[in-house]
Amino acid sequence: MDTHPPLDLSAGEDQVEIVLQQFFEQAKERAAKLGPAYLSLWQSLEDSAAGGKRVRPRILLTSYLALGGTDRGAAARVGAAFELLHTALIVHDDVIDLDFTRRGQENVAGVFRGLAAAAGVEERAARHRGLSAGVIAGDLALTGAFRLLDRLEVDTEVRLRLAEILDEAVFASAGGELIDVDLSFQPGAPPVDEILRMERLKTAVYSFEAPLQAGAVLAGASNDVVDLLGLYGRDIGIAYQVVDDLLGVFGAESATGKSSFSDLREGKRTVLISHAAQTPEWSELSALLGSPTLSAREAARARELLVACGARDYAQNLVLEYAERARQHLQYPAVPPALRTALFAVADRAVNRGR
Amino acid sequence: MDTHPPLDLSAGEDQVEIVLQQFFEQAKERAAKLGPAYLSLWQSLEDSAAGGKRVRPRILLTSYLALGGTDRGAAARVGAAFELLHTALIVHDDVIDLDFTRRGQENVAGVFRGLAAAAGVEERAARHRGLSAGVIAGDLALTGAFRLLDRLEVDTEVRLRLAEILDEAVFASAGGELIDVDLSFQPGAPPVDEILRMERLKTAVYSFEAPLQAGAVLAGASNDVVDLLGLYGRDIGIAYQVVDDLLGVFGAESATGKSSFSDLREGKRTVLISHAAQTPEWSELSALLGSPTLSAREAARARELLVACGARDYAQNLVLEYAERARQHLQYPAVPPALRTALFAVADRAVNRGR
Repeated sequence: MDTHPPLDLSAGEDQVEIVLQQFFEQAKERAAKLGPAYLSLWQSLEDSAAGGKRVRPRILLTSYLALGGTDRGAAARVGAAFELLHTALIVHDDVIDLDFTRRGQENVAGVFRGLAAAAGVEERAARHRGLSAGVIAGDLALTGAFRLLDRLEVDTEVRLRLAEILDEAVFASAGGELIDVDLSFQPGAPPVDEILRMERLKTAVYSFEAPLQAGAVLAGASNDVVDLLGLYGRDIGIAYQVVDDLLGVFGAESATGKSSFSDLREGKRTVLISHAAQTPEWSELSALLGSPTLSAREAARARELLVACGARDYAQNLVLEYAERARQHLQYPAVPPALRTALFAVADRAVNRGR
Repeated sequence: MDTHPPLDLSAGEDQVEIVLQQFFEQAKERAAKLGPAYLSLWQSLEDSAAGGKRVRPRILLTSYLALGGTDRGAAARVGAAFELLHTALIVHDDVIDLDFTRRGQENVAGVFRGLAAAAGVEERAARHRGLSAGVIAGDLALTGAFRLLDRLEVDTEVRLRLAEILDEAVFASAGGELIDVDLSFQPGAPPVDEILRMERLKTAVYSFEAPLQAGAVLAGASNDVVDLLGLYGRDIGIAYQVVDDLLGVFGAESATGKSSFSDLREGKRTVLISHAAQTPEWSELSALLGSPTLSAREAARARELLVACGARDYAQNLVLEYAERARQHLQYPAVPPALRTALFAVADRAVNRGR
């Protein structure tokens, strides 16, 4: 394997923050003219965006810089567009899941539910008001994502390909969200393949495939490289999602920022559950899952069962398998060594998250 | 007044339909690959779009053609973008209002509630599934609006101005929607000015100001004309909304496509209500409004009271006043006579709708 010094993303990352900050500053200035509630909406949207780990801008900067891109400003702008898309999708996902918090903080819906409750609106109506604000805020973030691309000073062809990649990301994510909603209504646990497909569409495409490809297109890479990055992104994105599922049950709260009860209480459909459903442990396990009042003791028992039935091992192997597949796509000669080194490191971090 | 033959919009209108049809055909082809539910989502989104009266594309074509524009294909594309924006906004507005029908037909949420119910999902969960589908579908239509502009083959400066106009339309509409949600939680009737401001932001900007200005920018009109069209659009848009409020209570169901009970049953905040709240008739009227079981007799009584207290006259005068203000903006020499004639006709039709 070739060795290369690690990429220095810091300048690009700083610029992403500046682009986002300017975007929200301008929006808040305009919003303030329409009244305090609208300003609050933009503020809570900015707070939602601020809580992110910038996974997508970083992955975009990685492919862009490793492919020799030098216009950090342009890459930061596209990275910020993906971050706004992410914000839009999680704000709307929370509306769909009727969630009022994210990462332990009130989300947009939570803030607006709180404002309504403080104004004396009764609980049910206050919740509805919160969710309505979430619908509106997500639309604004989605619009912002396309707007950041619009004003990019690049060749028309590059701009159109970037817009197409962003569009494809929205398209896949919407399809995945719909499949997720549908799966939640099906009795029993769906097959592993269906879970992986849903997770790929809902999250992996816009989080990995699309930003990797956008970085490459912006850097002027060949179509071969863009295609290979799509394949790498697909596989590493799936690995990342399965790690998420593992962390959602076995992760330390301090590392994940969310209670390791919540996936169990919600009865979230994951590859762990799909695997467990095929084993004798399922009858005891299925009685515990999805109980909103699951105790710490019951959660511990559910974890024990997921280990005993082999679901944890199965998921961990899936992670390794998909990460290895992802690396394989980088072995083609079309992939420059610097990119290979950088994305091997991304794969390692994805696999070892939360450890 | 100058006389001009009426503009022939028909070729442009046909092209709008073709753009929309192609947009949905392509999307459905892609969606089918992700599964039948996603195809159904796109189909119900297309059905939602098909139900529109194409107010926004027509108004855009009017300003474009009256200002001498000749590229009907480009104008149709921008018109279709505004129609998709309209579709996105009504789909999300229905989610916010918990409405499952529009114009007597099931909307996206209604279709998906029905699919869930048919699959044996219980009522409450089926409703939630329907609303979730509505959130997702609105995002897709919103994305589509920006995408149609992206691929427009015009100068960068023109494209950016169009994107900015579309962005401003989303921004205003989101702000108006938020104010509308807030007003619905306030006890009593808000002042007329607040209602008019909300209606302008929520609907008039994206329905009149923005498409008029977009047509002018695309036709290469001067900034003076673009500004005057904004002012005209603002005032005619407000007149249009007040006519809507009048039709919502006094209109024949055959003309409006919606029950003339629904605004009364919903207790919708309109200028009629704001005016009535300042009169002695309010104590009897307020007891009738917002009752979901309002009878035909009670509705008739509510209408009587709205006439007796002067609210109907007041609203009708507002319509005439705003339509007249709108016409005044067209008297400047910068406005070409053909445009003036065409927009006088638009004003007349707006005022006389449903008569």
